[in-house]
Amino acid sequence: MLGKCIDNVRSSVPLVHNITNYVTVNDVANILLACGGSPIMSDEPADVEDITSICGGLNINIGTLNKSSIEGMHKAGRKAQELGHVLLLDPVGAGASALRTDTAVSLMEELRFTAIRGNISEIKTLAMGSGTTKGVDADVADAVTDETLGSAVAFVKELAQKTGSVIAVTGAIDLVADADRCFVIRNGRPEMGRITGTGCQLSGMMTAFLVANPDAGLEAAAAAVCAMGLAGEIAWSRMQEGDGNSTYRNRIIDAIYNMDAKTLDNGAKYEVIQ
Amino acid sequence: MLGKCIDNVRSSVPLVHNITNYVTVNDVANILLACGGSPIMSDEPADVEDITSICGGLNINIGTLNKSSIEGMHKAGRKAQELGHVLLLDPVGAGASALRTDTAVSLMEELRFTAIRGNISEIKTLAMGSGTTKGVDADVADAVTDETLGSAVAFVKELAQKTGSVIAVTGAIDLVADADRCFVIRNGRPEMGRITGTGCQLSGMMTAFLVANPDAGLEAAAAAVCAMGLAGEIAWSRMQEGDGNSTYRNRIIDAIYNMDAKTLDNGAKYEVIQ
Amino acid sequence: MLGKCIDNVRSSVPLVHNITNYVTVNDVANILLACGGSPIMSDEPADVEDITSICGGLNINIGTLNKSSIEGMHKAGRKAQELGHVLLLDPVGAGASALRTDTAVSLMEELRFTAIRGNISEIKTLAMGSGTTKGVDADVADAVTDETLGSAVAFVKELAQKTGSVIAVTGAIDLVADADRCFVIRNGRPEMGRITGTGCQLSGMMTAFLVANPDAGLEAAAAAVCAMGLAGEIAWSRMQEGDGNSTYRNRIIDAIYNMDAKTLDNGAKYEVIQ
Repeated sequence: MLGKCIDNVRSSVPLVHNITNYVTVNDVANILLACGGSPIMSDEPADVEDITSICGGLNINIGTLNKSSIEGMHKAGRKAQELGHVLLLDPVGAGASALRTDTAVSLMEELRFTAIRGNISEIKTLAMGSGTTKGVDADVADAVTDETLGSAVAFVKELAQKTGSVIAVTGAIDLVADADRCFVIRNGRPEMGRITGTGCQLSGMMTAFLVANPDAGLEAAAAAVCAMGLAGEIAWSRMQEGDGNSTYRNRIIDAIYNMDAKTLDNGAKYEVIQ
Repeated sequence: MLGKCIDNVRSSVPLVHNITNYVTVNDVANILLACGGSPIMSDEPADVEDITSICGGLNINIGTLNKSSIEGMHKAGRKAQELGHVLLLDPVGAGASALRTDTAVSLMEELRFTAIRGNISEIKTLAMGSGTTKGVDADVADAVTDETLGSAVAFVKELAQKTGSVIAVTGAIDLVADADRCFVIRNGRPEMGRITGTGCQLSGMMTAFLVANPDAGLEAAAAAVCAMGLAGEIAWSRMQEGDGNSTYRNRIIDAIYNMDAKTLDNGAKYEVIQ
Repeated sequence: MLGKCIDNVRSSVPLVHNITNYVTVNDVANILLACGGSPIMSDEPADVEDITSICGGLNINIGTLNKSSIEGMHKAGRKAQELGHVLLLDPVGAGASALRTDTAVSLMEELRFTAIRGNISEIKTLAMGSGTTKGVDADVADAVTDETLGSAVAFVKELAQKTGSVIAVTGAIDLVADADRCFVIRNGRPEMGRITGTGCQLSGMMTAFLVANPDAGLEAAAAAVCAMGLAGEIAWSRMQEGDGNSTYRNRIIDAIYNMDAKTLDNGAKYEVIQ
């Protein structure tokens, strides 16, 4: 079923507007091309409305935000929302600085995101910080493990209900939830954390999956998470002696490039909790 | 003959100032080093005049332009022109937003570029949008194919005459023209379009070729286009099972690193139309 | 002895705040992860104080400085100094433009850097330009060779004394000195100069080494220099026919990823001059 989601990306070639950090932007562009999408980057406030208008989705990543790009995020977000586009928020570093937390919360107050993807710490920060999500119980552990799974699932489902967004929390165990259902995903490898930007790449790719699968947002987001984790597994199996994180980065993008629906369906490891 | 152009780059190590987008900038720097040039990046208006003064050429790429970098492009461009340096324009996204179109046209009105490199859509936008090129017949098809070749060649030659620039339109068939002659180039592979920034890389490399071959601008630009396409062919021949666009990116730059004059002369596939 | 320094990075996972250029930032992040550190990037003045506060060290690289990031460098630097953090300066392009020279000198006047790393030309520019280092004899040759070694060592030791910083001059022969001792290091390969950003990567990694070895700054800086050069040697030994600078870049980061204390101790080639 999830395999169909990547087929839809490859057949529709969704154009994704990315306002993203300059650290990992090249990898975001290449993984979007690898999965069958098409990337365009623009953060200048005077440019973003035109650019987002020709796209199907907008990926906002606050990783190296600045005053100008924050204005660009809001302008692009309003235009994309007006046009009914997919909107995704990657709140990189929310909780690590006031500016990042405030920017993420402010974007959530103004815009209704199709999906929000981050680690548990970032997502908890949003749950506590956002007026629109007031009352969400963020008193969950700082890592999603088998021991904390029940409370974590309840937390993401509640946040999904309050925000109207698909919530994706990635880590050793990934959770992708809407108000009703939660995918608990066990793809991936710990060594992916030794590469910069696997999260940013996933957010870009998830945006393309959401654009290409407009009637199945939860499945599309879960498919992107499974695809990324599975690519990490496939890439690791191709590592040779002396290879390290830089080669691993290349092999993960390569694995997305070569991934077909059948590979994704066979390799995805998940259960769905109602 | 084209092989001599890359020899001249390797023997003179031209220093190229790049005002370019943050998506593909690392690959632009590495391909400049691969071909025998030397890159320096600077977009701050208060910095660009000093930097461009120590270089031989200026590569302006509007891919992630912002208000400050646009000012930097104009300041650097004026200084480079005053010093008689090579100037190249890569109008990324011209036609996709008003800001990009206006910036490219404004730069063309102020500066005389040695070369302009883009895809057919971008170049048509410039032909229609620029006052200096008014009257150019941009009514050509949106892809250069064997069927549309005649009108496309006439178009680029006319634009070259009006602008005084070498015009390079890259795609499945590449055209590189001045007012009198047009190189029709058939190197490259379609999979290069699945890598971000092969166009940006070519623009950087073309600037180095133009600096190193001051008396043969058309040949230098054509040599850079052939070298890039040939690198794509060589790199593809080295791809192994499981490799994808990220590895392909590395292998293309590697192929430039290892390319000598003989390889380029033997592998270049072109005809010259008067 | 130097091997212990990399062990300390791996066991303590120092968080390093980087204000660095957008050309090589991805490689800086990946090499920090490769050596056992953890990178975070932020240059917005309104963001940098919070970010640097949660880190152990600050790496300031002026490679693509702009007005906003210069303000960010000063604000982050003051906060990091107030908190007793490691501060490193990489004066990319000092001497090539007035803005870069002035920025580097101004930072040196305001802050006491734990270490300053650059090529001989950049370091000489700082020695001549900075009020705090007035009187340093910068009349040394423009390359450190066996012939010029004596005067070069005297120069870096004197600059180290005047600034209170560890001074690292990298080139064919690397010098790492405090006021009393100078490591003369002969690791590395000339082909590393054909990759963009090996210097930037070293600066990021050196910051992590300094944070993880608070009581042995000179050894930590020297260990980072030896590790980078040794990685260049190991990576070169893994190059295959057709490989070039892009693959070499990946293999160098990979070699850092796989480097253990014993490998570093066995491969480091240095002498210490009192």
